Amino acid sequence: MKLRLTLLALLALFVIIGANAQQALWGAAPIVSPQVNADKTVTFRFMAPQADSVFITGDFLPTTKMKTPFGDYDGPGKALLTKDENGLWSFTSEPLQSDLYSYSFIVDGRNTCDPNNVYKIRDVASVFDVFIVGGGKADLYSVNDVPHGTVARRWYDSPGNNMSRRITIYTPPGYENSKAKYPVLYLLHGMGGDEEAWIALGRTSQILDNLIAQGKAEPMIVVMTNGNVSQQAAPGESPKGLYKPTMQLPNTMDGKFEETFVDVIRFIENNYRVTADKSNRAIAGLSMGGFHSLHISRYYPNTFDYVGLFSAAIMPNEQVSSKVYANFDETLKTQKENGCKLYWIGMGKTDFLYKSGVEYRSKLDSLGMKYTYVESEGGHVWRNWRDYLSEFVPLLFN
Amino acid sequence: MKLRLTLLALLALFVIIGANAQQALWGAAPIVSPQVNADKTVTFRFMAPQADSVFITGDFLPTTKMKTPFGDYDGPGKALLTKDENGLWSFTSEPLQSDLYSYSFIVDGRNTCDPNNVYKIRDVASVFDVFIVGGGKADLYSVNDVPHGTVARRWYDSPGNNMSRRITIYTPPGYENSKAKYPVLYLLHGMGGDEEAWIALGRTSQILDNLIAQGKAEPMIVVMTNGNVSQQAAPGESPKGLYKPTMQLPNTMDGKFEETFVDVIRFIENNYRVTADKSNRAIAGLSMGGFHSLHISRYYPNTFDYVGLFSAAIMPNEQVSSKVYANFDETLKTQKENGCKLYWIGMGKTDFLYKSGVEYRSKLDSLGMKYTYVESEGGHVWRNWRDYLSEFVPLLFN
Repeated sequence: MKLRLTLLALLALFVIIGANAQQALWGAAPIVSPQVNADKTVTFRFMAPQADSVFITGDFLPTTKMKTPFGDYDGPGKALLTKDENGLWSFTSEPLQSDLYSYSFIVDGRNTCDPNNVYKIRDVASVFDVFIVGGGKADLYSVNDVPHGTVARRWYDSPGNNMSRRITIYTPPGYENSKAKYPVLYLLHGMGGDEEAWIALGRTSQILDNLIAQGKAEPMIVVMTNGNVSQQAAPGESPKGLYKPTMQLPNTMDGKFEETFVDVIRFIENNYRVTADKSNRAIAGLSMGGFHSLHISRYYPNTFDYVGLFSAAIMPNEQVSSKVYANFDETLKTQKENGCKLYWIGMGKTDFLYKSGVEYRSKLDSLGMKYTYVESEGGHVWRNWRDYLSEFVPLLFN
Repeated sequence: MKLRLTLLALLALFVIIGANAQQALWGAAPIVSPQVNADKTVTFRFMAPQADSVFITGDFLPTTKMKTPFGDYDGPGKALLTKDENGLWSFTSEPLQSDLYSYSFIVDGRNTCDPNNVYKIRDVASVFDVFIVGGGKADLYSVNDVPHGTVARRWYDSPGNNMSRRITIYTPPGYENSKAKYPVLYLLHGMGGDEEAWIALGRTSQILDNLIAQGKAEPMIVVMTNGNVSQQAAPGESPKGLYKPTMQLPNTMDGKFEETFVDVIRFIENNYRVTADKSNRAIAGLSMGGFHSLHISRYYPNTFDYVGLFSAAIMPNEQVSSKVYANFDETLKTQKENGCKLYWIGMGKTDFLYKSGVEYRSKLDSLGMKYTYVESEGGHVWRNWRDYLSEFVPLLFN
């Protein structure tokens, strides 16, 4: 019987698996993009012989002042690529600080992805290409040869929202083979985000793995919720199907998430080996998630010993009426009196929420509530939120 | 103190979160693509006023004969979009059978993604846009309002490969709150794939959730390994960083994965509540994963009561010498004599491995080994593999 596959047929396997995969292999000459060079410059390439212009936009470029309906702010930069005689456009950046960056091309005025980069991350309603420049702080965002925690996507019942909801949970290395009880960090996303945000652009599992391996952080469980109570789950992960996501979600800052956060805590404490007390609970979030952290920790004023407000929004909308936002000052005072080991605030100098942060700190000062304040360069960007997480986590549960 | 954020500032939050997110919101008029229409046609749109041609290629189009260095085969189809006066290109498909489909655009000869679709899945070294046409079998591939299992990405020690390796594990709804022991399906990917393949394009968690909810499948654990023993993890998930993936990986079909599969079984049986016996173990895989399933189940000839070969490669390369591939017929006979409740083979009529499948079935016939054979339309494509999984899983552990 002539059964043996030849090497040729095996090679055919390489190229034919998948309905479309071979297109990419035969459709274009191999182009490397992005290419992180030894001097930490990065070269981007895009083949488009017929295009009139190819720009790149991304958070690795100097920011540009953008006029928006809501005032000026620092937008991502933009740079023109150069076209060679084959129609290959390219651009090499300045040497970059170690970080995780995202970008898109703009071809004849239209945003498009980099077809030569498979590393893409959705941020709310858009998908960006990403790359990492190592040899510095982004080594924390990289997978290193250290013990790795487990990342689970689960569903929990939220009786307060009358629905089953999706949640992302990081358990530290060794959790499964231990009888120890662990502390918990609840980590909340920004507006338009979901339970995928911190684990994707936030690099939470890498940051935790690395900080724990370096002995800089206690092993802890990190719980990444979906803070949009109108959603069961991230786009594409719920019965709503593969719909087009939007940033404008209802019921995100109306008190309902804060009010029903007890469902999350109950789920975690009933399902994980945790030490269910205040000194083993932390809550932090970015932007809207900072807003949620502020109000949850105040609404349940004797529940969290560690609070992190990353580029946080502060005040509820005046139109919103919720018992959660009543007695702001009084409950904050109660929270202060109950004690809070760390009230950590991070804000970028050019953040559009900077001013409300100043006002909030003056409120805290007037109440005599202690806090740690870190002011960084830049604005309302993931670069800062990864930084804040990396700074905040080592301060927890000591 | 003037602390209250106005509605305007809240709206600003919507558009400013993330360094780049607002680009997508302000950079282009809203374009809907893909749009699944009520009659199950699908409309695709791509804005490119300056392009000379925009094609779409995908597995929803009639296949085309492609000439390759390895002979002809059925490649994905291609269709030209029509340009309107604003430079918006569009194409509407025929009514489509319910399924999950993938596609790319080809703009002036170059593959590119759909910038209006956030649902993209990496298949080996390429990223494709995907969509689902419901109202039929793809309802199995959709998230429905049923209890959901948990999907965990973990790391396990493989002493046989002297490395820690990443693994994807589905536990069925209720697993965490039960004391029951569960059966296990080991589910293996094809060449160039990894531990993300079955959970992504394979829709394993959706298929299992839905079949279990319908009472058509036993609650089971599904273990999705990485079958490339030169890799610790999928591209981007290991210390190798964000490198450019390739289909041509070393040590994928040299016996090492089969030989060290015992490490996987040991990890699962030591870490999950499973019934650790033959009648509660199944193994299945697609293409190279079918090859692995065939050889693992034969090499450990009294270990699996259920074996699934989906579009499987059969024979090792003649250059490869491994004890795993010695005594093929003898060990197959032993496997037969030990008993195997289900030996399930699925193959597409136009699969380039069709002929070797015919030869293998004739070998099984000559040995008197019983098997179930399902022949489907089409070739070596994910559409068939999702079908095979959906047919195979209800037959397990009854």
